[in-house]
Amino acid sequence: MSPTAPAPTGAPTPARPGEPRLLVLKIGGSVLSDKQGTGQTDFDAIDAFAGQVADLVAGFPGRVVLVTGGGALCHPVGLRIKADRQDPYAAVALTEPAFTMRWAWTTRLRARGVRAVPLQVTSMFGEHPDGTPITETAVVRRLLAEGALPVLSSDCVVTAAGTLRILSSDHVPALLTAEEFGPVRIVALTDVPGILTRGPGSAVLRHLDPDDPTAAERLFWPTDAWDATGAMAGKVEALAEHARRGAECVITRGDRAAEDLRHLFAPIAEWPADTAYTLISRQWSPS
Amino acid sequence: MSPTAPAPTGAPTPARPGEPRLLVLKIGGSVLSDKQGTGQTDFDAIDAFAGQVADLVAGFPGRVVLVTGGGALCHPVGLRIKADRQDPYAAVALTEPAFTMRWAWTTRLRARGVRAVPLQVTSMFGEHPDGTPITETAVVRRLLAEGALPVLSSDCVVTAAGTLRILSSDHVPALLTAEEFGPVRIVALTDVPGILTRGPGSAVLRHLDPDDPTAAERLFWPTDAWDATGAMAGKVEALAEHARRGAECVITRGDRAAEDLRHLFAPIAEWPADTAYTLISRQWSPS
Repeated sequence: MSPTAPAPTGAPTPARPGEPRLLVLKIGGSVLSDKQGTGQTDFDAIDAFAGQVADLVAGFPGRVVLVTGGGALCHPVGLRIKADRQDPYAAVALTEPAFTMRWAWTTRLRARGVRAVPLQVTSMFGEHPDGTPITETAVVRRLLAEGALPVLSSDCVVTAAGTLRILSSDHVPALLTAEEFGPVRIVALTDVPGILTRGPGSAVLRHLDPDDPTAAERLFWPTDAWDATGAMAGKVEALAEHARRGAECVITRGDRAAEDLRHLFAPIAEWPADTAYTLISRQWSPS
Repeated sequence: MSPTAPAPTGAPTPARPGEPRLLVLKIGGSVLSDKQGTGQTDFDAIDAFAGQVADLVAGFPGRVVLVTGGGALCHPVGLRIKADRQDPYAAVALTEPAFTMRWAWTTRLRARGVRAVPLQVTSMFGEHPDGTPITETAVVRRLLAEGALPVLSSDCVVTAAGTLRILSSDHVPALLTAEEFGPVRIVALTDVPGILTRGPGSAVLRHLDPDDPTAAERLFWPTDAWDATGAMAGKVEALAEHARRGAECVITRGDRAAEDLRHLFAPIAEWPADTAYTLISRQWSPS
């Protein structure tokens, strides 16, 4: 096992307009859990997606950050944490299943030659007492400059009040919306092709204005009982926040059988015509 | 399980001269592994020491950082990493056993009411290409200000060359030698009472000048074959480095049956007369 990804000598830059410099790829727990079957984490799915991610990093070294969803391993822990009314540090319990998910990706990516490095968000992110964010990402930037792949996940983070809370994987890309990373594209792979306009199977909303996310609220259907993060409504709220900071955010379906994910680096106008998605971004001109 | 440690409202300060503001307590793998017996990690030892640490944090909330040694879980992985000549990212393999050790402490400390938060050093420490250190400890400082206990361990870190290397637990206190933490005392609990002057059972060197660590070199005996970090010689080299940055460093025996560890916060002149130790520090006047 000898990772062979080339190590670029400097900070990578996009080849052309409309292409992101950094892609934050969030692969949702919904496509990593066997929801219809065992209800458990689907490690075969992680293995299949790891192949797609390895191909992506080979094509765009130092320009991808992976954020894994928690899925079946993390959601029950998340629900117990949210039900706890006594312990302001209850959220530390998420640390273990979150690590397990990051490590499952890391081993599978390394087996494919990727310089994958799992990183704990708790150590890098939080709030000062006045509510301003703590965001320390020098190691993330350093690893990207070397062509490596940081592997992040949901984690607990310290709040302004001095307690711990869960930072869901949809919110984790907030670490990477600083100008120094931009232009940033955040792609959330999930088990639906985008924000559905009329429930399962219906057409997909093509664009959502992040300054008016309430426009989408009436579209959301009730979430699964096992889900701790508000499913699509929570995802859209998080992505709209990233978009207001300048990121271009996309919700699209994750397909473990897909040939590759390289179109995720192309200008969106050039994506395959049969790829459905919802774009959440400030700059958008319908083609 | 409801952690009850009081949350101080501001940064804690020492009560009197000779007392550290921050104690970095490194509990060595040598006292956490059953070296004579199974050769495995001794979780009963972790449990016993967790009781001592919980008592210490109750007495000095927000003034302790725990660094766990790797011991039986981490050393074999460390040896494999050091033997690897192919993969510049081989050291990422340490991430899993290091997490396991931090988590073993965290669960046992939380069961005793400590707001223990395990933190991955990889995310906070490393080197820029020019060799200057990356040290991002805002979350550590934030947790300390809230009376919590950061739990660190050895981990892999990114080097100036862009590879990963192991940062041994003896070197981890380097994250905490900045002036803002001081005065800092680093105490390494191990299976000997200090630097022995003539092999097992002999008298203990009372003081070592960190600017002349070679003075101690002739004292070191051959290390165990299973040890990946140079045992006492490596420990002294690391502690001398911290001492040159202003920390007061102590090597002393860890005793799982000890009543408490509160003397570790007292001026060293006031330590119990029967406590042997080696002090590595610049300021020292023999009593």
